[in-house]
Amino acid sequence: MLYHLFDYLKDLFDIPGAGMMKFISFRAACAMIFSLLFALFVGKKIIRLLQRKQIGDQIRDLGIEGMMQKKDTPTMGGIIILLSILIPVLLFARLNNVYLILMIVTTVWLGGIGFIDDYIKVFKKNKQGLSGKTKIVGQVSLGIIVGMVLYLNKDVVVLEKVPAGTADAKVNVIGNSKICTKESKSTKTTIPFFKDNEFDYSMLSPGKGKAKQIGGWIIFVLATIFIITAVSNGANLTDGLDGLLTGTSIIIGTTLGIFAYLSGNMIYSDYLNIMYIPSTGELVVFMSAFIGALVGFLWYNSYPAQVFMGDTGSLALGGIIAVFAIVIRKELLIPVLCGIFFVESISVILQVYWFKFTKKRTGVGKRILKMTPLHHHFQKQGNAGIDAYIQKPLKALPESKITVRFWIVAILLALITVVTLKVR
Amino acid sequence: MLYHLFDYLKDLFDIPGAGMMKFISFRAACAMIFSLLFALFVGKKIIRLLQRKQIGDQIRDLGIEGMMQKKDTPTMGGIIILLSILIPVLLFARLNNVYLILMIVTTVWLGGIGFIDDYIKVFKKNKQGLSGKTKIVGQVSLGIIVGMVLYLNKDVVVLEKVPAGTADAKVNVIGNSKICTKESKSTKTTIPFFKDNEFDYSMLSPGKGKAKQIGGWIIFVLATIFIITAVSNGANLTDGLDGLLTGTSIIIGTTLGIFAYLSGNMIYSDYLNIMYIPSTGELVVFMSAFIGALVGFLWYNSYPAQVFMGDTGSLALGGIIAVFAIVIRKELLIPVLCGIFFVESISVILQVYWFKFTKKRTGVGKRILKMTPLHHHFQKQGNAGIDAYIQKPLKALPESKITVRFWIVAILLALITVVTLKVR
Repeated sequence: MLYHLFDYLKDLFDIPGAGMMKFISFRAACAMIFSLLFALFVGKKIIRLLQRKQIGDQIRDLGIEGMMQKKDTPTMGGIIILLSILIPVLLFARLNNVYLILMIVTTVWLGGIGFIDDYIKVFKKNKQGLSGKTKIVGQVSLGIIVGMVLYLNKDVVVLEKVPAGTADAKVNVIGNSKICTKESKSTKTTIPFFKDNEFDYSMLSPGKGKAKQIGGWIIFVLATIFIITAVSNGANLTDGLDGLLTGTSIIIGTTLGIFAYLSGNMIYSDYLNIMYIPSTGELVVFMSAFIGALVGFLWYNSYPAQVFMGDTGSLALGGIIAVFAIVIRKELLIPVLCGIFFVESISVILQVYWFKFTKKRTGVGKRILKMTPLHHHFQKQGNAGIDAYIQKPLKALPESKITVRFWIVAILLALITVVTLKVR
Repeated sequence: MLYHLFDYLKDLFDIPGAGMMKFISFRAACAMIFSLLFALFVGKKIIRLLQRKQIGDQIRDLGIEGMMQKKDTPTMGGIIILLSILIPVLLFARLNNVYLILMIVTTVWLGGIGFIDDYIKVFKKNKQGLSGKTKIVGQVSLGIIVGMVLYLNKDVVVLEKVPAGTADAKVNVIGNSKICTKESKSTKTTIPFFKDNEFDYSMLSPGKGKAKQIGGWIIFVLATIFIITAVSNGANLTDGLDGLLTGTSIIIGTTLGIFAYLSGNMIYSDYLNIMYIPSTGELVVFMSAFIGALVGFLWYNSYPAQVFMGDTGSLALGGIIAVFAIVIRKELLIPVLCGIFFVESISVILQVYWFKFTKKRTGVGKRILKMTPLHHHFQKQGNAGIDAYIQKPLKALPESKITVRFWIVAILLALITVVTLKVR
């Protein structure tokens, strides 16, 4: 809103400094600082409120040392994250942008589902919360909405560089430089190791011409549904140690934010030879608020946590990451970039599958890991593996150390994601 | 070295892919991944070696819970950091660059002083280590070297944009765009809230013309000496909690790395209207190795630490940050960007001063903080202040939480540094 206000004021009075608001980088930095401070100062009050309402997370007793002392820690702290994202976005972003609206819808939608889930768990004392089926329905319907909007909205286009003189081409003058481009409503996305790092969903579709195009869009919408559901649930599973999901999401968010900044700027995307997607620059403001909110939230959420985000936070975080990646056409990088979510999910799936399989075969269910999701395995396993011979053995690897190590792995994965894009 | 090798190979055989090495961004990402993995895997072996040599840090007994268990943790882990910086830099950077050579000299010089200090402490069982005087002499002489090289080396210039047609102006063609520039051997630096965000040291110098210029350089060299000494000692004081200096330096390093990337690229610096300094792009490779090394080191250094960096690490880290900032002419941003080091130093100075002052006045020395450097104050203070009313009181604020909170403050300071540069 401030963007529009200052834009108006500038036209009206030509106030010096009002022009600052036109820079995405400036608004992004403001949004980040604002959301960080908001999470820090308003967060404190929300935590107090949550605690007063006696919202204690109903933790399963996992037999892990120090786990039971978490009983008094309030959950639903995701509310802090949601507010710290939405308020600065409404203040600093240009609101007439289809991508931004999609992000806001995603945040509210999945935040809402998570909130209902937490509410049932905490206040109705029903440990199951929302049924898994209901959650999936919520995620799938969001996927359909996002996919269809990207298909049907006419603002959703990719600019492709074409030789000068092509029909319908537009000549963009930047400084003294000219870039000829053509808008295209394409199903192209980014993937490493392919020619030009591009992949077109319509390549998977049978048929020819128009039919192939529509087939491509159907595959794209299905992919969107799958990705949103998978990442949202992956984030949900990852949220099991103090600060783990918060920190990992900061790292993933920063990487996606950089991609959005580069993709949305014609000069940079031309220089770096990456896909130019008009209007995605505005998403940088959203992602900055996202990062700021999480950094501020981490103040209270770091070990030992004074608040948990609950499903209110984790479902929304995963969904935001998924939709953001889809919108800037980097969704096929998710298995690596969000490798932590991916491996945590796989660990649960394999564990359950192997247990059932061995039980059927031998009558006794066996486990691959001591416990899943993966992070609990390390808690149970103690100071083995890489550390075994450099340190006096610890009874169990401390929670704060597992968390920091997961962050480090997330940083490494982010770097690998960036570097593979450069290789061609 | 790989740069030069691939450059040679490309000329000779035109191997596909060999051209990748010419991109700074690619080499920087490679250097970061390499240094991270090096610190992770070789680091483990070095820690084992340090431990076998019975290098236990001789910790002062501060009466802080859990402090004494640190007695068995080896120190001098800074060796891991130094190697993880130097090896990838030698591999991936262009070595014929004056700035890069300065950075390598700084790393080895201050790493060496720190190593001697640690060596005396650990092996000679002399808790004092090197005398404070000797350390200062080492830092000041490095400052003189850095300052004089920047003054005398003809490659150290700033490009200023000039109107087309100016005498001696060079026309740079980038794509289809032309930027007219003129090299200048100037004492200009970056400072927020000033006109064009620029400040010239020669403004402080008396006299006119040539004399004023030389006076400016003298002031610049003095400033260099002061900044290197101050930041190096500030980092040394900050290194008191597991992972504290490591994480803070990652945040500061990332900010400086971004500045270097933007300052060293004519397109970006022109677009963002920041000072263009030729050849500083290569520093990005150095900073990437620095960041990777610290992230990898954090694997072992995070709470509970399995190794301490010692003065080998902390003196070098501070010096690297200082020299890097000076070289890219962002040294006047240090009080904010390195606010953590600054406040930690101030806390010690004020505490000592106030104790002496009150002792002289009243006969009884009084303290402002429970303990300095500042981070120990929070350890002693327990769960007061901002947390007092949201959480059952803790006996003492846990070390891992203080560390993460200092990191969060460092992130906020980095954001403020960036945003103030945009305001004009």
